[in-house]
Amino acid sequence: MDETTFNQALELIKADRARGASELARECLSLIASIARETPASDVDALWSMLTQRVALLEQARPSMAPIHNLLARWRTAAEGNSWAGLATARTQMARSADELIEYSLRAVAETARQTAAHLGPDRTVLTHSLSSTVLSVFRGLRHQGLKVILTESRPLYEGHRLARQLADYEVPATLITEAQIGLFVAKADAVLVGADSLLPDGSVINKVGTYPLALVARDQGVPMYVCCESFKRRPPDMEVPPLEAMGSAELGAPALAGVAVRNIYFDVTPARLVSAWFDERGMHTSWSDRVLHEAAPEQ
Amino acid sequence: MDETTFNQALELIKADRARGASELARECLSLIASIARETPASDVDALWSMLTQRVALLEQARPSMAPIHNLLARWRTAAEGNSWAGLATARTQMARSADELIEYSLRAVAETARQTAAHLGPDRTVLTHSLSSTVLSVFRGLRHQGLKVILTESRPLYEGHRLARQLADYEVPATLITEAQIGLFVAKADAVLVGADSLLPDGSVINKVGTYPLALVARDQGVPMYVCCESFKRRPPDMEVPPLEAMGSAELGAPALAGVAVRNIYFDVTPARLVSAWFDERGMHTSWSDRVLHEAAPEQ
Repeated sequence: MDETTFNQALELIKADRARGASELARECLSLIASIARETPASDVDALWSMLTQRVALLEQARPSMAPIHNLLARWRTAAEGNSWAGLATARTQMARSADELIEYSLRAVAETARQTAAHLGPDRTVLTHSLSSTVLSVFRGLRHQGLKVILTESRPLYEGHRLARQLADYEVPATLITEAQIGLFVAKADAVLVGADSLLPDGSVINKVGTYPLALVARDQGVPMYVCCESFKRRPPDMEVPPLEAMGSAELGAPALAGVAVRNIYFDVTPARLVSAWFDERGMHTSWSDRVLHEAAPEQ
Repeated sequence: MDETTFNQALELIKADRARGASELARECLSLIASIARETPASDVDALWSMLTQRVALLEQARPSMAPIHNLLARWRTAAEGNSWAGLATARTQMARSADELIEYSLRAVAETARQTAAHLGPDRTVLTHSLSSTVLSVFRGLRHQGLKVILTESRPLYEGHRLARQLADYEVPATLITEAQIGLFVAKADAVLVGADSLLPDGSVINKVGTYPLALVARDQGVPMYVCCESFKRRPPDMEVPPLEAMGSAELGAPALAGVAVRNIYFDVTPARLVSAWFDERGMHTSWSDRVLHEAAPEQ
């Protein structure tokens, strides 16, 4: 993969508004696998040098998204532990390691969704915000079990419309509302369920903007607020809290007016005190204890 | 005014999404004045019968909007206390009574805005939601006093865009956000300020949907939550809480999908416990005591 092609792929990842953190992390691993297999290099050292440089660029692409950091760090650690028998073997092993992490990430997400669905059980009404692929997987798991979903349209790009199409395909009855109507609809749900882009070391949740007001409504209405995400979403304690990503203000379609700034910040932080339970591939955690915090991600 | 013309005017009031409760109440009074002046009638009794019938229809037009009920009730009470010297005098007096109530309502709104602006004082950043003509009047009053405004776009009809244009005209620096971003921006404000469509007898606030989550964020962030509305917005204790008006789901522009219901409820109820202070034409009330509750609206 030449530099131009890589840079194009990098820009697409930076600009991607459709896919969540886990999906983009796997996209990064898939790029690494391609680079390892295909990019011309004189020897193992040259290949390694180029790969680590590109890994660093990918890690910086979406600072709100912990899985990109975590999975790429894990790939690098695995690669550093290897001694290469030659360029061809190195290419194969580096690419295979990335492919295995993709599989591992997919299994972790699937298991997280399975655990969450098992806890929710049949005949539930669940309210969600934005479009999390893990939450979608929970809904798929419960689609023949009397599930009903209330979902927000999720301005500015209306992920809610995409989720509504999926729910229609699953034949899950759904109610689509504006974000402003959460105060009227949370009380009609048995639970609020969202994914996450990152979990901070104290259990706070970085997720699509609007999640924090939703958690406040859930608390005020006595409805449980659940967060489901695989352990790769946990931001390591030594990692700085990232600035919350802002996107182009044009996405809001507001009139251009002198003296009127349009802001389009994509994420907010929901404090751990507002989360009733976190689900990951190991099951449900009802308190964010040091035990949960310091648990290593499960081994491959 | 013949029946067709009246019915057209009634339908416009029912469908009006641009004007708030006070403005529509004055529009109802203006219709009553026209009817009193112009509609053919054989005698005072025939005129009175027709007027009370149309007043009843206007009262039912927008059940969430207390001022329509209150001002029309006040007009009827004033008229009932009169003895008419003849049809021409009756017409003049009934119309004048409606015109005076319009003036009275305008003065109450202006004084409410003046009291609110005086309390806020100079160099404040105020966050608001939706477009209240009273709040706009507060902003006009503070426009040369270092005011900054943060405002929501207010889906589905984007009243925030109209408010942004007004603020640009006033040369008040403004920041426009999606409803979902309130959790990020309330902490940047000195106060949250909204109008109201009605106040319930316990001080709870019926206002544009999204006000209740906003009040929760304000409480969680320690920012005062102010409601400004003239006393005509108070719903009498003996009046039923109205159903919250829902508008056409087409306004959301969502795809039509089998099994997906689109909801578009326009109002929510913010409990009095989340309101830091209510402003009306008499000043600021920091608790919703029985005294405030049972105060009659100020005399003309």
